[in-house]
Amino acid sequence: MIVKSGTLKLADPFITEKGEVLKEAVVAYEAYGQEGKPTVFITHGGLSSHHAAGRYTPQDPLPGFWNDIIGPGKVIDTHQYRVLTANSLGSMYGSASPLTSNPDTGKHYGPDFPEITLIDMVRFHKAFLDQMGVTRLAMIAGPSMGSLQALQMAALYPDYIDSVVGVATAGRMTPSGMCIHHFMINALQMDPAFNNGWYEIGTPKLGLHLIQQVARIYYTHERFVKERYWDSVPEGKDSQAKRSLNARDYLLTGVEEQIEGRDPNCYIRVLNAINSYDLGSDVGDYEKGAQRIKCPVLLINFSTDTEFPPYWAEELSEILNRKNPGQAQVKIIDSIWGHMGCVQEGTAIAKHIRQFLCR
Amino acid sequence: MIVKSGTLKLADPFITEKGEVLKEAVVAYEAYGQEGKPTVFITHGGLSSHHAAGRYTPQDPLPGFWNDIIGPGKVIDTHQYRVLTANSLGSMYGSASPLTSNPDTGKHYGPDFPEITLIDMVRFHKAFLDQMGVTRLAMIAGPSMGSLQALQMAALYPDYIDSVVGVATAGRMTPSGMCIHHFMINALQMDPAFNNGWYEIGTPKLGLHLIQQVARIYYTHERFVKERYWDSVPEGKDSQAKRSLNARDYLLTGVEEQIEGRDPNCYIRVLNAINSYDLGSDVGDYEKGAQRIKCPVLLINFSTDTEFPPYWAEELSEILNRKNPGQAQVKIIDSIWGHMGCVQEGTAIAKHIRQFLCR
Repeated sequence: MIVKSGTLKLADPFITEKGEVLKEAVVAYEAYGQEGKPTVFITHGGLSSHHAAGRYTPQDPLPGFWNDIIGPGKVIDTHQYRVLTANSLGSMYGSASPLTSNPDTGKHYGPDFPEITLIDMVRFHKAFLDQMGVTRLAMIAGPSMGSLQALQMAALYPDYIDSVVGVATAGRMTPSGMCIHHFMINALQMDPAFNNGWYEIGTPKLGLHLIQQVARIYYTHERFVKERYWDSVPEGKDSQAKRSLNARDYLLTGVEEQIEGRDPNCYIRVLNAINSYDLGSDVGDYEKGAQRIKCPVLLINFSTDTEFPPYWAEELSEILNRKNPGQAQVKIIDSIWGHMGCVQEGTAIAKHIRQFLCR
Repeated sequence: MIVKSGTLKLADPFITEKGEVLKEAVVAYEAYGQEGKPTVFITHGGLSSHHAAGRYTPQDPLPGFWNDIIGPGKVIDTHQYRVLTANSLGSMYGSASPLTSNPDTGKHYGPDFPEITLIDMVRFHKAFLDQMGVTRLAMIAGPSMGSLQALQMAALYPDYIDSVVGVATAGRMTPSGMCIHHFMINALQMDPAFNNGWYEIGTPKLGLHLIQQVARIYYTHERFVKERYWDSVPEGKDSQAKRSLNARDYLLTGVEEQIEGRDPNCYIRVLNAINSYDLGSDVGDYEKGAQRIKCPVLLINFSTDTEFPPYWAEELSEILNRKNPGQAQVKIIDSIWGHMGCVQEGTAIAKHIRQFLCR
């Protein structure tokens, strides 16, 4: 499937929860499948773009993050659905963010870009969907940050959405996730090149490099490192020394390329927005906030996920089922991938979505 | 119990596994309890000193790391045992390390200090014990890196040791631990003030600051953060924002004070030594190396430990019991503390050691 990314300028200024105004807000998006069919909206992870399926050119080495799930004949079937994805507010892949132009100055916003919340991200996506003429979603689904947005949209607009699939998820941001995000923010801000956010774009590298290394530990599980980098080393006097070198290579290989184009100010906005997530944050009560969701909910978590251990999905499922028995179900995938299972375990995720759709 | 730290200069030059020579090697140590009684040797964690019990002055805010375990009337009873502890080779608390004087130059070793292995650390401790006139150990016990040293000493000198207690442990360094250590080494070396190790002592702070933040996430468990920093926040519209601020405070409070006096070159030597650990590294076979241990072994791990998940202790126990049924036992402590349980769960550890001694 060959796809392309488009942009749409919101007709109205976007006003954040805290009352700050983005006069001109652009949304980067992709659209797959048949116009006129029921719409599925796909949200994306915090460090990812909105490129969810297909390739931009046949030569692309990797397809979009949920290519096992979305496409012709796949569980989110582009013959049956219109599939939309959009880059999140604050993210560095084309939507309004610290990298986009501030109409008051003619320069990029940088650290002047407003503080945003997860609710702002969802309202931004809703404005996009409204402007695209989408009056109802057959499904909203996403991994990681995308799953939080999916649940939050279903809580804010319960009559707009027919089903939710959250992968690697919770009803509120977890303590462990909050901590790792603050570490990342601190590392970016402590980078000597950060300059309170007024750096030349592309120049701060140290913080980005270090958080990418930590991400490779925190968002996977040691079973992954063991399978890929340990078990292949033959037993011998220097086997542990070789394993140690392999572990070092795992942390460092390709990091320079991976952080190319990544922007600290965007990261900081996105990470703080994720940390604001709580389905009750706008109503002052977590359970009541969550129980606004009316539609069926599928929560898929991973046995080895440090950021979203399965008990956080169980917590949310219990809250929903207490009001509306049978509304929510939790599926746990046993994976070597930890949190990265949300994009690496596409086949297993697709299987659970298929069962959910056949309910 | 008021204690003091002493130093002893090894009579002979110390030669590392790789053949490098430390002409003058000092050992910093502490001694508690009765001379002439059976000797217990206590080893320490990688980021810790050898101050295992008591206080240097009555005004010290905190006692040694295993004060719940070692002392008059405690399970390692200073009325019944002579207790020795010694700072590890390469560590920054007084033993031969990058901070000590290189007799060839009259200046501190800095990055010229030899690369060392965990076996070097153990041989260094054995030379210390020999010189102290200790002909046999009733027990060797330690947390984290100290547990690896305890097991390694029992494998290298099986007739010297009557029992081993390893807390938060494994028979070889774990994949996850290797990765986090390499991250720490990378962060220290990427600090702009590091200068290939030829920095002015005390000046590189950025890397030390960041790895301390990561340590507070990696070496604990989110149940700890939730209990201490979340559950006290009352439910309301801003509860998640307050929790996020609390998570940030948890990462940052007291870090400046905590890293005071810590030395990147020492950290790097110690972390690489830990990564070299494998009970079979000197004989080329993990199982055979481990099965050199003759004495009873108690392994205590923590349900929530990311660095030493309990299955690594089970692996070693099975290897030992395969040759010598009943030799090893594993106790799992359920703890909110994660890896830090090895010093924070002193009461629970003491209970298991007491049962082990009564066997």
